[in-house]
Amino acid sequence: MSSAAAAAPENGVKASATGRLASVYSEVQTSRLNHPLPLPSVLNSPFKIVEGPKSSAAGNPDEIAKLFPNLFGQPSAVLVPTGSVPSELSGGGLKIGVVLSGGQAPGGHNVISGIFDYLQGRAKGSTMYGFKGGPAGIMKCKYVELSPEFIYPYRNQGGFDMICSGRDKIETPEQFKQAEDTAQKLDLDGLVVIGGDDSNTNACLLAENFRAKNIKCRVIGCPKTIDGDLKSKEVPTSFGFDTACKIYSEMIGNVMTDARSTGKYYHFVRLMGRAASHITLECALQTHPNITIIGEEVAAKKQTLKDVTDYITDITCKRAGLGYNYGVILIPEGLIDFIPEVQQLIAELNEILAHDVVDQEGNWKKKLRQQSHVLFEFLPQAIQEQLLLERDPHGNVQVAKIETEKMLISMVETELEKRKSEGTYAVQFKGQSHFFGYEGRCGLPTNFDSTYCYALGYGAGALLHSGKTGLISSVGNLGAPVEQWTVGGTALTSLMDVERRHGKFKPVIKKAMVELEGAPFRKFASMRDEWAIKNRYISPGPIQFIGAGSNEISKTLQLELGVQA
Amino acid sequence: MSSAAAAAPENGVKASATGRLASVYSEVQTSRLNHPLPLPSVLNSPFKIVEGPKSSAAGNPDEIAKLFPNLFGQPSAVLVPTGSVPSELSGGGLKIGVVLSGGQAPGGHNVISGIFDYLQGRAKGSTMYGFKGGPAGIMKCKYVELSPEFIYPYRNQGGFDMICSGRDKIETPEQFKQAEDTAQKLDLDGLVVIGGDDSNTNACLLAENFRAKNIKCRVIGCPKTIDGDLKSKEVPTSFGFDTACKIYSEMIGNVMTDARSTGKYYHFVRLMGRAASHITLECALQTHPNITIIGEEVAAKKQTLKDVTDYITDITCKRAGLGYNYGVILIPEGLIDFIPEVQQLIAELNEILAHDVVDQEGNWKKKLRQQSHVLFEFLPQAIQEQLLLERDPHGNVQVAKIETEKMLISMVETELEKRKSEGTYAVQFKGQSHFFGYEGRCGLPTNFDSTYCYALGYGAGALLHSGKTGLISSVGNLGAPVEQWTVGGTALTSLMDVERRHGKFKPVIKKAMVELEGAPFRKFASMRDEWAIKNRYISPGPIQFIGAGSNEISKTLQLELGVQA
Repeated sequence: MSSAAAAAPENGVKASATGRLASVYSEVQTSRLNHPLPLPSVLNSPFKIVEGPKSSAAGNPDEIAKLFPNLFGQPSAVLVPTGSVPSELSGGGLKIGVVLSGGQAPGGHNVISGIFDYLQGRAKGSTMYGFKGGPAGIMKCKYVELSPEFIYPYRNQGGFDMICSGRDKIETPEQFKQAEDTAQKLDLDGLVVIGGDDSNTNACLLAENFRAKNIKCRVIGCPKTIDGDLKSKEVPTSFGFDTACKIYSEMIGNVMTDARSTGKYYHFVRLMGRAASHITLECALQTHPNITIIGEEVAAKKQTLKDVTDYITDITCKRAGLGYNYGVILIPEGLIDFIPEVQQLIAELNEILAHDVVDQEGNWKKKLRQQSHVLFEFLPQAIQEQLLLERDPHGNVQVAKIETEKMLISMVETELEKRKSEGTYAVQFKGQSHFFGYEGRCGLPTNFDSTYCYALGYGAGALLHSGKTGLISSVGNLGAPVEQWTVGGTALTSLMDVERRHGKFKPVIKKAMVELEGAPFRKFASMRDEWAIKNRYISPGPIQFIGAGSNEISKTLQLELGVQA
Repeated sequence: MSSAAAAAPENGVKASATGRLASVYSEVQTSRLNHPLPLPSVLNSPFKIVEGPKSSAAGNPDEIAKLFPNLFGQPSAVLVPTGSVPSELSGGGLKIGVVLSGGQAPGGHNVISGIFDYLQGRAKGSTMYGFKGGPAGIMKCKYVELSPEFIYPYRNQGGFDMICSGRDKIETPEQFKQAEDTAQKLDLDGLVVIGGDDSNTNACLLAENFRAKNIKCRVIGCPKTIDGDLKSKEVPTSFGFDTACKIYSEMIGNVMTDARSTGKYYHFVRLMGRAASHITLECALQTHPNITIIGEEVAAKKQTLKDVTDYITDITCKRAGLGYNYGVILIPEGLIDFIPEVQQLIAELNEILAHDVVDQEGNWKKKLRQQSHVLFEFLPQAIQEQLLLERDPHGNVQVAKIETEKMLISMVETELEKRKSEGTYAVQFKGQSHFFGYEGRCGLPTNFDSTYCYALGYGAGALLHSGKTGLISSVGNLGAPVEQWTVGGTALTSLMDVERRHGKFKPVIKKAMVELEGAPFRKFASMRDEWAIKNRYISPGPIQFIGAGSNEISKTLQLELGVQA
């Protein structure tokens, strides 16, 4: 174990083992470095690309066709084994760039390893560049040339620190020009964009722009987000979701055992995932909590905050009747974004606060609409103050800062007090709040995420080598053994719809929300009443890399693929 | 995997597999059930007890002698192999009770398994009772008769839910009488008390009382606390510390990788452990954070809150100069209890708030002493409000509710603003707060805690069988392979000192604090300046039960025992 001084590799200089290996590795980290990464069998032999039918779009195909005149309609590509190497894959080395975009997800480093190993094995003489700090690295042409020694210490390791990430986007004509300059300066044959829905949309715009300007650089996306909301028929899951959910579920399982042993706390656990509730649903399927709130259901049923509070309070009372004054409750981070009345209140508050003074006497509240006024008065005082005081630089209420789990604890307390004073119930209730977020984004990737990411990267290399652009790397058949996984690419335009912003159509990859008719939610819905009353807690325990459970895939995937869960 | 309905075993009824197995187990939980529990070789053969010299007390031996006339001076007991079973161990079955006392710690179930297996193997015809819900179970004679089927599902599992725990104490003459009644009703030969310093003190008082009254029931303690502050020369560590620290370190390692990847957050992590900072120190040794605050050092150096804030701010500024606007900072839960000026302020606030009205104009502050007034004004407004508003039923300020990590973030922000306005520094600083507590108390015990607890329990059985009382089960030589571990008992009176309360001497087992001259702190102190500036982060990863790192003992133990760390 080395302890040489850390030194960031200089721009453009071929880097050797710096950075990571400068630190001392734990035994587990070290053991992961040489963990074998099996490839789907199609990637272990000569392959050719087979194309499917012309594709369309997720919505508004006419608008998408206008926005992507060069790419719209591209077929999906599937790799199939062949006898000999096709001529288009027999050429010399390629120059390929890679960029990590947006929030971290376990496995990102393995995507890079996969691309690199493809190029080393199948396109001899290739050069690979890692753009530093996200898309800004492309625009500023800040990169590091990747070498086996540089990449090795990051194999199967968490984090994005090999080349780091960023949240910039390539949007303006000037920024597209910068990206073109970089592509031409480095003579890039291709670029892999590892990111979520926004970043993949951006990757597609970049591919379209390069194609339109006859720049040879092709662009392939890779599906990354712990939130699990970038998926489709061809892209069964985004990487990182598996690891993050297992880390959160370990913690939830521990808290459950604590709750049952102590017998006196209700643990309210808020879980990362602002837009969709996939993480919360997956953790529920793994651990069987007493109460789970799924944002998509709240929205579909047009529930109010009072409805959610009553639902929790009712179960609390029922449990008290059975002698249980404890429990575990899962809440998605984005819960209040799903509640229309809260959105309405916040819109009104933003309007009022922009123009009026908040007077001590509360006269300002008269400007709220009736329903919003009732909701505001229903909120705990601390939340009221937070809404009024903490605002962003534009003066807007900061919804993201609201600690939903603490708010719900306070509202359940109030409701229970009310029922007590009415003589309905006398429940012992003590809430404990938790937020599980950052702990999960950078864990050591599970065997699944390690292997899946390596295949995504290896496949992205194959797609670029085959001359493809505007596709997202797609690895499928994930319920089967790795050898039988399918590899290919899906037209990014086929995942898109448009949104109207500032009077213009903008392309967006629609976030995949929890489907109330989907197998994971239906499984959960069929079990939750039992979980609420009886204590069916499961403790998944820490992620294992060898032995029990080490190769299990997420419950969501198992259910969506129809393999046993 | 069974899913039969859960049913708590009726009082006194011989329980079969209920409770736990009623839930579905995860793959990892299931795999742990049959994880082998090797015994120290002395427990695998006939043994006899060898006694050491007469013992004394940790302090004020004369007072301890008066408080424990029947037990004071007892020698330590060590088990040594012998050719044939000594006559005192050849007798028939025993009736033994066990109780879990206080907060949970991973491994408690294995102590019970160990006692049970000793009785099954070495004292045929024995009966074992588990008192339910802690010491209250003894007083109310609420128990369950333990059977192999009942115990099996809890082997190597976290939590205390087999018989649950409680925080009651046996203190008054009436309560002692209740305990006597239970001992006589069940015809108990012995009782094992699994608990922390207070519970073991209580165990010794119980042993003294039974001896004084010629009640045959003997009492043996077992060292339990994740805080790691119940230890001595003969008791190298308390169980649960190993597992809890590894769980927290997994999370800290993940947050470190996140910090390094994102490059824009300072993560302030508060760790459980109110009295001593062992957990924080162990986690620091495992993960190498940039800044670690050790309460005992703060107290020894008589540091103020301003000193601690300046220390953090200075390093933040130094790191900014090196281009690092991120970092990870560990803080013990009990930090402010170590700062004399804070204690003083709180004492004054309690006094003032008991008699005066807190006027808006702040005239009440004039009653604070100068130093306390300065400190109060130095505190962030949210903390000031918390101190004034949130008080316990006696009207006292609730120190435990102060979120120290958030307080420090706010104070560092203020100090940085000050330095910025003075033109000294312009540092980008964004704090993220974390509290790691409940997640660690109930995790699946590590291989070390599993084996250590089983030996503690098995040894406790041997001590009771040998007629011993007033000892704490002591398993030593933990740096060696399990076969070479030593087994015995240490006189509880030898760990005691007295405290004067309400004009009377009360016996207490002194909490083992972090020793600034001890090997773990010295190792930390020799490294921290490097960790502060360079990023030597280690990610220990999730606890493994097979393979890499699965049998590693805590860094604290490694350093205290002089084995490599």
